[in-house]
Amino acid sequence: MPIYNAPVKDIQFLLHDVLKVTETGVPGYEEMEADFTSAVLEEAGKVARDVLTPLNASGDAEGCTLENGVVRTPKGFDKAFAAMKEGGWTALDCDPEYGGQGLPYLMGTAVGEIFVSANMAFNMYQGLTHGAYSAIHAHGTDEQKTKYLPKMVSCDWTGTMNLTEPHCGTDLGLMRTKAEPQDDGSYAISGQKIFISAGEHDLAENIIHLVLAKAPGGGEGTKGISLFIVPKFLVNDDGSLGAHNGVTVGSIEHKMGIHANSTCMMNYDGAKGWLLGDMHKGMRAMFTMMNEARVGVGLQGYAVAVPAYQNAVAYARDRLQGRAVTGVENPNGPADPLIVHPDIRRNLMDQKSFIEGARAFTFWGAHLIDRSVRMGDADAEGLISLLTPVIKGFQTDKGFEMAVQAQQVYGGHGYIEEGGMSQFVRDARITQIYEGANGIQALDLVGRKLAQDGGKHVMAFFEMIKAFIKENQDDAQMTPFTDPLKAASKDLQAAAMYFMQNGVKNPNNALSGSYDFMHMMGHVCLGLMWARMAKAALAGLEAGTGDKDFLEAKIATGHYYMTRQLPATSMHLSRISSGADPVMALAAEAF
Amino acid sequence: MPIYNAPVKDIQFLLHDVLKVTETGVPGYEEMEADFTSAVLEEAGKVARDVLTPLNASGDAEGCTLENGVVRTPKGFDKAFAAMKEGGWTALDCDPEYGGQGLPYLMGTAVGEIFVSANMAFNMYQGLTHGAYSAIHAHGTDEQKTKYLPKMVSCDWTGTMNLTEPHCGTDLGLMRTKAEPQDDGSYAISGQKIFISAGEHDLAENIIHLVLAKAPGGGEGTKGISLFIVPKFLVNDDGSLGAHNGVTVGSIEHKMGIHANSTCMMNYDGAKGWLLGDMHKGMRAMFTMMNEARVGVGLQGYAVAVPAYQNAVAYARDRLQGRAVTGVENPNGPADPLIVHPDIRRNLMDQKSFIEGARAFTFWGAHLIDRSVRMGDADAEGLISLLTPVIKGFQTDKGFEMAVQAQQVYGGHGYIEEGGMSQFVRDARITQIYEGANGIQALDLVGRKLAQDGGKHVMAFFEMIKAFIKENQDDAQMTPFTDPLKAASKDLQAAAMYFMQNGVKNPNNALSGSYDFMHMMGHVCLGLMWARMAKAALAGLEAGTGDKDFLEAKIATGHYYMTRQLPATSMHLSRISSGADPVMALAAEAF
Repeated sequence: MPIYNAPVKDIQFLLHDVLKVTETGVPGYEEMEADFTSAVLEEAGKVARDVLTPLNASGDAEGCTLENGVVRTPKGFDKAFAAMKEGGWTALDCDPEYGGQGLPYLMGTAVGEIFVSANMAFNMYQGLTHGAYSAIHAHGTDEQKTKYLPKMVSCDWTGTMNLTEPHCGTDLGLMRTKAEPQDDGSYAISGQKIFISAGEHDLAENIIHLVLAKAPGGGEGTKGISLFIVPKFLVNDDGSLGAHNGVTVGSIEHKMGIHANSTCMMNYDGAKGWLLGDMHKGMRAMFTMMNEARVGVGLQGYAVAVPAYQNAVAYARDRLQGRAVTGVENPNGPADPLIVHPDIRRNLMDQKSFIEGARAFTFWGAHLIDRSVRMGDADAEGLISLLTPVIKGFQTDKGFEMAVQAQQVYGGHGYIEEGGMSQFVRDARITQIYEGANGIQALDLVGRKLAQDGGKHVMAFFEMIKAFIKENQDDAQMTPFTDPLKAASKDLQAAAMYFMQNGVKNPNNALSGSYDFMHMMGHVCLGLMWARMAKAALAGLEAGTGDKDFLEAKIATGHYYMTRQLPATSMHLSRISSGADPVMALAAEAF
Repeated sequence: MPIYNAPVKDIQFLLHDVLKVTETGVPGYEEMEADFTSAVLEEAGKVARDVLTPLNASGDAEGCTLENGVVRTPKGFDKAFAAMKEGGWTALDCDPEYGGQGLPYLMGTAVGEIFVSANMAFNMYQGLTHGAYSAIHAHGTDEQKTKYLPKMVSCDWTGTMNLTEPHCGTDLGLMRTKAEPQDDGSYAISGQKIFISAGEHDLAENIIHLVLAKAPGGGEGTKGISLFIVPKFLVNDDGSLGAHNGVTVGSIEHKMGIHANSTCMMNYDGAKGWLLGDMHKGMRAMFTMMNEARVGVGLQGYAVAVPAYQNAVAYARDRLQGRAVTGVENPNGPADPLIVHPDIRRNLMDQKSFIEGARAFTFWGAHLIDRSVRMGDADAEGLISLLTPVIKGFQTDKGFEMAVQAQQVYGGHGYIEEGGMSQFVRDARITQIYEGANGIQALDLVGRKLAQDGGKHVMAFFEMIKAFIKENQDDAQMTPFTDPLKAASKDLQAAAMYFMQNGVKNPNNALSGSYDFMHMMGHVCLGLMWARMAKAALAGLEAGTGDKDFLEAKIATGHYYMTRQLPATSMHLSRISSGADPVMALAAEAF
């Protein structure tokens, strides 16, 4: 069975040596002293190891079942969910007014990585509840908050998000689900929603569905869409549960992965719903949560690659096969371990340098969300809005790729389900698809975010990189980081310039290169993260504090990323600069 | 259910316009007139569509089962296998002396693509038999050939290859299976073999296992290995079947994909075996078939991407979602089809340009095998030996990547097993692993093939490209092909030069870049293929023969590959030039 060890040391390094959280002045960060965060992370690591990891493979093999309208989660999930609630893990970064612990989003992110790595499918029950919690918290009336939030913070009730319908995924303007106003101020919701994660299951007393639907008078397309709260069981004024609402599960999906999470087709048949936020502003209400939800999926992208990597390393150390070309390294054994071979190293270094870079990028993003939410920092809000599609799209693409590479280390044994490596690949695959398929992330980045607020945020991003380079380029130990970062950033700027100069006369010139731009920007961001981590590691070595081997490994891993991954930017720039013609040349019938 | 249409027109274009098979002078090619090959391919396409495609998804869902030592293949496989035998498809390129039809390997390859695309798992039963047939044909005594080949040509008996053991995959020197000489000239084979494709099943009267084992006196490592014929049922002198041999299936594997092919753990318990080829030269006997087997897996790599692509195109044409940014294209519908969107185009063009390029590369490889086998062309033999790891490693990596991209076009629907797109991804994944994991292909290419015969073959390869460029660069319509090919080829030569200059002082400088070199060379080869296809298409347009739209689409697809894929070579060169240091910097315990 696959192993998993929470990377507490790496997380601590990011929080305290790189981000230096307690020095940032973000309200709530003053609590995040190194001892405190270490204790929380260690405890989360124990839960991950003892409770969640053992259920990952069994949950995948067993999956969810639907019988007589009831979805059963895999064996042991109920007890594990109870343990998560009891440990207060579901309430970590929720509002204390509703029973939460009020820790920063960054802390929730750090703990979240550990739980996702241990059992992604399991963690979704709680993750989706958190998303629904955030929506009600941001847009609900006081009455709605009081009614729903405490039970959702504790996960006595879980939550869902209902957007997709059979004929509409990305294009929500095609939505058919209807909301008819009732005399009592509620709405009768009717329609069919598909791909509803945790839509029905046996882990909670109640399920609070947030449903996008069209109420009369809103106009065409997405303009007519509103957001509704539709509880599975109606909630009485005293908080007790009433009648079963008109919402039922029609079927559950057989998916490539995340088998242990129930993905439901939900039928709303005149179900009672209550408007959440403003009428006909449902899309806006959804979008306010989008950054958080997409950063969350970007986190899944690298977090599922973490156990894949850890197991690949363990296998590469244990499996004896062949001899090192530079001379026998295990003379007493029949062969050397795989890890002596350069191509295995290349593979593992790809994984390690991506994972640690993506973790830094995600934590930085979570920190920007905290700055935005807790300090009203508009620059931080603009920046995270720009970076969100990159965190989501780039990290899930690479996370999947790295899970595949981890599986490859196992050779034929990686293809056997019992080894567990296939599950990481199959689970990772969904992160590229849900919460906006990655092509949509690229479109969001290039078609919207680059020009947002007059291009202010992307200019600030480039300025920030420039300032960092300027500040550090005279340090000889930093030039292996600042030089490649400079080159990569220059490529990225050239691509943005190409879009500006050619996108106006034909927007396809920009959109044909959007996917490449997203990846290019991902590399630049990870390059920046590695430069920052290197700086922190060099400072630690200089000061003689910290673990010398650990800090030196950080620098070496960063070198690897800068020399072996950042050169991708020039390839992406070449592709982008070829414009729309090669992409759009064929007639649709010529494919 | 996924569709599949055999790409007869594309195959015909390659055989007759690009390779011009009947003009090559290869013995046997004179039969391959356009009318003949067209008739064969159309007929194969019908079998694929009517017999094999309908069983692909059901075979995946049902899988194989083991009960009381008997493996049952999925419903309908027996009838389909009978249809394949009856149609003579199993005998296509086999020796007429043993009941084969004697067609060239190239023709077998063209038909093979169609069958693999339709049902990869099914086709493996026949494919492995062909491999075992080739081994016996190349190394067997006349008696052995007469005894086994006719039944294997007809697939009344199927074949297997037994190499891997639990503790040894790549490193066959660690092998434990033993062969004890018996008084009657046979050997008693004992040991355990794993991952034996089609090791046991219900489709044939007998199974002829080819087993690598150690017979006394051969020395350490791979030197002591010999190859043995071990039939499931002993074969009497009159050809009738005798007693069950001492070989049994221990278990079947639960795999990520190719569920319909039984992957067995086989126990040999003093089973009667007969030496095939020379004593202690088993590895050499295996390697003589390696080119063919690896080209076959390289074919699987792109062939499984073909139906994935075809279904992605169909979905992109049908699914209405969003509006074209350059103006509404489907004014009478609620939205435009996905195929109007540039990023969907980019995705589909990646697939199309890879598939058609890989098909050309594979057919060229098959043609070189024919030249080598049928004409004793030593240059062709040297060249295919060089190209084989590229065909296998590059094409299976890219084929998998393209299947993933095809799945992505479906959005959430691609993640649902019933849609069939997941199966293409899961099936494709094995091609990167078996018949030598792709890291081993890269090692073979850089560690062995580049320097083979004093580097003669790689120099001939570069000369060939140079000659092609020289011949065509004055043609303005060809410069969009010759210019990028020149640049990419220059990058590849620079990488080879880097290995020569730095690999001697430290072989890790070469091996750290082996994987990148394999991909780089794959791009150069596909670039060369596209340049050749463009030349043939331009000639067709000039002559006014052929289908204008088809030929113009070929040129446009080639342009796409040259502008959007070939720039990858400079990235690979950058990586390679960074040498071993970044790759090997960490201590094994620092991972």
